[in-house]
Amino acid sequence: MGHRLVLTSFGESHGGCVGALLTGCPAGLEISESDIQPMLDKRRPGQSSITTQRKETDRVEILTGTYRGKTTGAPIAMTIRNSDQRSSDYDDLKHVPRPGHSDYPAGIRYGGHNDPRGGGIFSGRLTATQVMAGAIARKLLDRCMGIRIASYTVSIGGVDAHIDGMPSEDSIYGNDVRCPDTEAAADMRDEIVRARGSGDTLGGTIQSVALGVPPGLGEPIYNSLESDLAAAAFSIPSVKGVEFGSGFAGARSRGSTNNDPYTIQDGTVRTTSNNSGGILGGLSTGMDVTMRVAFKPASSIAISQRSVDTRTMSGTTLRVRGRHDPCVVPRAPPVVDAMMAMVMADHAILLGMIGPVIL
Amino acid sequence: MGHRLVLTSFGESHGGCVGALLTGCPAGLEISESDIQPMLDKRRPGQSSITTQRKETDRVEILTGTYRGKTTGAPIAMTIRNSDQRSSDYDDLKHVPRPGHSDYPAGIRYGGHNDPRGGGIFSGRLTATQVMAGAIARKLLDRCMGIRIASYTVSIGGVDAHIDGMPSEDSIYGNDVRCPDTEAAADMRDEIVRARGSGDTLGGTIQSVALGVPPGLGEPIYNSLESDLAAAAFSIPSVKGVEFGSGFAGARSRGSTNNDPYTIQDGTVRTTSNNSGGILGGLSTGMDVTMRVAFKPASSIAISQRSVDTRTMSGTTLRVRGRHDPCVVPRAPPVVDAMMAMVMADHAILLGMIGPVIL
Amino acid sequence: MGHRLVLTSFGESHGGCVGALLTGCPAGLEISESDIQPMLDKRRPGQSSITTQRKETDRVEILTGTYRGKTTGAPIAMTIRNSDQRSSDYDDLKHVPRPGHSDYPAGIRYGGHNDPRGGGIFSGRLTATQVMAGAIARKLLDRCMGIRIASYTVSIGGVDAHIDGMPSEDSIYGNDVRCPDTEAAADMRDEIVRARGSGDTLGGTIQSVALGVPPGLGEPIYNSLESDLAAAAFSIPSVKGVEFGSGFAGARSRGSTNNDPYTIQDGTVRTTSNNSGGILGGLSTGMDVTMRVAFKPASSIAISQRSVDTRTMSGTTLRVRGRHDPCVVPRAPPVVDAMMAMVMADHAILLGMIGPVIL
Amino acid sequence: MGHRLVLTSFGESHGGCVGALLTGCPAGLEISESDIQPMLDKRRPGQSSITTQRKETDRVEILTGTYRGKTTGAPIAMTIRNSDQRSSDYDDLKHVPRPGHSDYPAGIRYGGHNDPRGGGIFSGRLTATQVMAGAIARKLLDRCMGIRIASYTVSIGGVDAHIDGMPSEDSIYGNDVRCPDTEAAADMRDEIVRARGSGDTLGGTIQSVALGVPPGLGEPIYNSLESDLAAAAFSIPSVKGVEFGSGFAGARSRGSTNNDPYTIQDGTVRTTSNNSGGILGGLSTGMDVTMRVAFKPASSIAISQRSVDTRTMSGTTLRVRGRHDPCVVPRAPPVVDAMMAMVMADHAILLGMIGPVIL
Repeated sequence: MGHRLVLTSFGESHGGCVGALLTGCPAGLEISESDIQPMLDKRRPGQSSITTQRKETDRVEILTGTYRGKTTGAPIAMTIRNSDQRSSDYDDLKHVPRPGHSDYPAGIRYGGHNDPRGGGIFSGRLTATQVMAGAIARKLLDRCMGIRIASYTVSIGGVDAHIDGMPSEDSIYGNDVRCPDTEAAADMRDEIVRARGSGDTLGGTIQSVALGVPPGLGEPIYNSLESDLAAAAFSIPSVKGVEFGSGFAGARSRGSTNNDPYTIQDGTVRTTSNNSGGILGGLSTGMDVTMRVAFKPASSIAISQRSVDTRTMSGTTLRVRGRHDPCVVPRAPPVVDAMMAMVMADHAILLGMIGPVIL
Repeated sequence: MGHRLVLTSFGESHGGCVGALLTGCPAGLEISESDIQPMLDKRRPGQSSITTQRKETDRVEILTGTYRGKTTGAPIAMTIRNSDQRSSDYDDLKHVPRPGHSDYPAGIRYGGHNDPRGGGIFSGRLTATQVMAGAIARKLLDRCMGIRIASYTVSIGGVDAHIDGMPSEDSIYGNDVRCPDTEAAADMRDEIVRARGSGDTLGGTIQSVALGVPPGLGEPIYNSLESDLAAAAFSIPSVKGVEFGSGFAGARSRGSTNNDPYTIQDGTVRTTSNNSGGILGGLSTGMDVTMRVAFKPASSIAISQRSVDTRTMSGTTLRVRGRHDPCVVPRAPPVVDAMMAMVMADHAILLGMIGPVIL
Repeated sequence: MGHRLVLTSFGESHGGCVGALLTGCPAGLEISESDIQPMLDKRRPGQSSITTQRKETDRVEILTGTYRGKTTGAPIAMTIRNSDQRSSDYDDLKHVPRPGHSDYPAGIRYGGHNDPRGGGIFSGRLTATQVMAGAIARKLLDRCMGIRIASYTVSIGGVDAHIDGMPSEDSIYGNDVRCPDTEAAADMRDEIVRARGSGDTLGGTIQSVALGVPPGLGEPIYNSLESDLAAAAFSIPSVKGVEFGSGFAGARSRGSTNNDPYTIQDGTVRTTSNNSGGILGGLSTGMDVTMRVAFKPASSIAISQRSVDTRTMSGTTLRVRGRHDPCVVPRAPPVVDAMMAMVMADHAILLGMIGPVIL
Repeated sequence: MGHRLVLTSFGESHGGCVGALLTGCPAGLEISESDIQPMLDKRRPGQSSITTQRKETDRVEILTGTYRGKTTGAPIAMTIRNSDQRSSDYDDLKHVPRPGHSDYPAGIRYGGHNDPRGGGIFSGRLTATQVMAGAIARKLLDRCMGIRIASYTVSIGGVDAHIDGMPSEDSIYGNDVRCPDTEAAADMRDEIVRARGSGDTLGGTIQSVALGVPPGLGEPIYNSLESDLAAAAFSIPSVKGVEFGSGFAGARSRGSTNNDPYTIQDGTVRTTSNNSGGILGGLSTGMDVTMRVAFKPASSIAISQRSVDTRTMSGTTLRVRGRHDPCVVPRAPPVVDAMMAMVMADHAILLGMIGPVIL
């Protein structure tokens, strides 16, 4: 993904490693594992009782692209060695596709040669590679443009948060579900515990906001900010919906209420509302860029499900084993964050707002 | 847009023409203006009392890429000459950006050199170029793979349609609002008339369905069907949300209800529900690919709005003149259709399902 | 071609038009047909007795992408209407491929659906579209970076020119063969006349030089200046060789003579020789970028040639009819120029040396 | 590089590793380190007295993209750990650029942040990553299309080889200089020894031939076989010239001798000569694809050279230390081979000649 700041994710859930190759990063950015590890840690499973108890240490290693603590302008390769793999959990599933997972279409697409263990390249584990790249993009944006990004849970199951303004990182990561509305957060946690109790899973929505984006970032029509952000968001497993600003709700409103009136604030052109989500015509307006992303409930449930055996072409049932998340949403904010950062940094480079050398 | 079947849209709302350049179309496809014009006609304004009364004849001309009625494999250039331009309508707006339009960010992005007349390249008029390319992609899909696509209105303002199964083209285009639920269609029409009466505009949602898609179409992660479809949909002006299958509603459900169980039907693997919208892991499952797209209410309202004068950096009001659509949704189904077709055909070419020569 | 400044050529030799679509051109560049026509005129046939007597007026029309005489940042579509087509000349050739032309492989590649008239998309006529785009790139480079480009004939048939330093445009275009060495130019002209007399054709080499290129332009390894320039040069029909600096001759020399020693000149780092052709490691050194391009003798000779009839799969002879150039080299300098300019401008945009808006 | 089969090279000469990330490789190809190591070994230094005595074990490790010995369709990451680094050799050079190397332009391009050790990303060591990817592409071509590729030395310094027909791998790798003309090979070896004796270096040319390429492979104009092959060849450090078929010599011939007459041979359309190098109009003709590549003499000579100190901006001299090749040509055939294979496989995938799954 990306036009100039290009990320390729590689690796498999249960192979030797997962990794990110990031090309097009300007030279001279101070970067080390310690810039990346904290973001990875926020995504890492096993941190609380409501996420999977799999242990993944997720220790990032920067293989190439830096010299004396700064980026060189050359491709940055980063990997995480895999560990704690219980591949036998997946041996049965080769011919009995798990509902909601990519097993069936991937088997067709790759003629059965895809790595079935843990979903292979389709695994949510690959989001760790997005977080690695995103950490660098975030630092670029902060360092060169003063753009900050925050992503947080706004709903889980039937529980909605009520959030005004840009929440602090502390308020987001102060609880297990990554929701700055502490009251809602407690309810979300309860709902996850209930779902897990019945072997079931929940979905939810995450909001991602970029602050300090100057107006005019983006391209018209095909590589618009919205197109690129949506494409990035849909590259996260389990994402099934994306909206900007008032989004689907806005489609029920009238132009007179949905249009954002312009005003002058502190000598700058601003709008008094932000139903556009900070994007008009595919370009940033200077207001906060606001995207909301819908995650479906995790597909790995501990309840028996109907499936088919593709050898006998007959119905069967399966029960997905292994240790899975009852809800992936609490682990997703750093991933959505990363995708927002990658797209913003890419467009800033495209327009020369971030040059090839960091001064 | 596109990896192998690549569309570039060019032209301006009030310039000499708008056009589409389509590269990567296989050779040997019978194509002429008569394949394209009917789709354009469905998008054309001035067809009913609820769309803008601007007259745009929108007569497509294929300039290159065909020989003796068939594609040659060379780039296909198509244009529509512009007419009925009242450019003076836009003269005042150069320094007073219209709320909801791209005027302000585009002015920044292009240093004031962008064509302000009718939004220039950002105009909804450019969707005509998408429809031209889409008509060719649709024919490719139908001819080579038996894939059919239908797009139709599922909500306008507060009115929702109830639709079961795949509606026929007749049922979609049998009414002004392009909604196969005739009862809802009448209500939608009424609501549009009411909004227009108060100088206001409405938004809505369009559903697009692709039938007959084989399983395994798509790429994992970054060029997934969902990423590419969403990027394509967000390249349509006024689109602010995209979801697949159960989408945002699915994010409120549980895994046990949202997972689509597999079954064998007529010797084929199918799912008993289609909450995934026919896509898992970015790949088609063999079920109908189902996307829903949210359009914001059109930004050109006939009511006075607050804006600013960027010369004096002070507040002002403006009233958008010109003849505008009270709701663009009824004209949008051919456009969403086109985007769905382009992405599907592109991926079919990528995987060699459609070869470089049509036999 | 291109990463950010992207050219797509379309049209066919004997179709309705040929055209260029240029995307990624910054906004605010003053451009009109009068900037492009002079370059086209230099490529146009029928200017002297040693080029084809076909009449092609080659009148460029800018369809989109400018407003009030300046680029808007939107795609620039330009076309030339075709005229003076004698398509019947090509009717016989469908099944008897002309040696040296693309007829045979193109027939296979496109399953016989390619436009056979004049080579269709493979025609040298398409170089007019490259010249159109190149004229804009040249103006960009001159206006924003002070880079000037000159391309001129250095050999035709067995005649070599001897040229020191950067020749003026007048000295290049002062004679029919576009060679600043007037003595050699006369010999070249004679050799062309002799070849034409025997129904034969000649090849030659063109040198292209970019002056004023700052050091550090380019990318390492895969999108190096050399890779991109070579790819651009080989997109010109009849080009069969490309070299930079000492090129093939340098491969016979020793490191001690081929290395260019550094020196300080007027406070700037320079080299005392330029065997590298101004490029090291794929990046510009600040010295003149120097490329030499080999054109094969034109394939359309007026002498009977051996070919085959692909219907009967048996040998036959053919004589290519029509009015053809005895040597295309004299018409090629503006084309090589254009390719040099496109690549340079593209890389300058990539590195932010030319921004999205011309001030 | 690549459209569908995409190679990204990463790593630095003296960093932790060099690596190749190959995306777009079809699933189901049997591949293991043992397919790649033999090609790497042919490129490895220290094999004979005429190459550098640096020890690089160059042991390839496939990190991702295979499962049970076959490709999965997911990105293939491969690395070689670096060893035997004497980085202190390069400490002085930071401000005194080595003539012929990328030091000076790279320093400008990356604002001094590039890794100076051994040229960093610009090092010839990166060609190992090209060989890794090329080994996979070669296997794809052989397995799916029966295309074989051979690359061999045709000149070193002033010594030219005379070679008829396609040489066997044994005849190429039977001597130190990789030249199937054993007599010339002995002379080449002598000339290298002589050059090395005087602390100097030599260049040379390599020919690469692809056998069994079906007609019609390639794209017209911008992504032509010639454009892509040339771009790939110029991505090899030290390459300064590329020609196909009769190339530069052909530019001195006449159309009547340079055109390749068609004939029928064993029921197939062939040409009686192959001056086109198997490519017309950017498409393969079905004859052997033949490319010749010129390498400049290696820039690291053991003789004192003039350079400048960029701190004081004054002239100085430097003597390049370290263990360097007196001629890189003998180590280059596997690299040119790899580039030929990558481009051919990429185009075969583009046209669906190689599908997404190997059966």
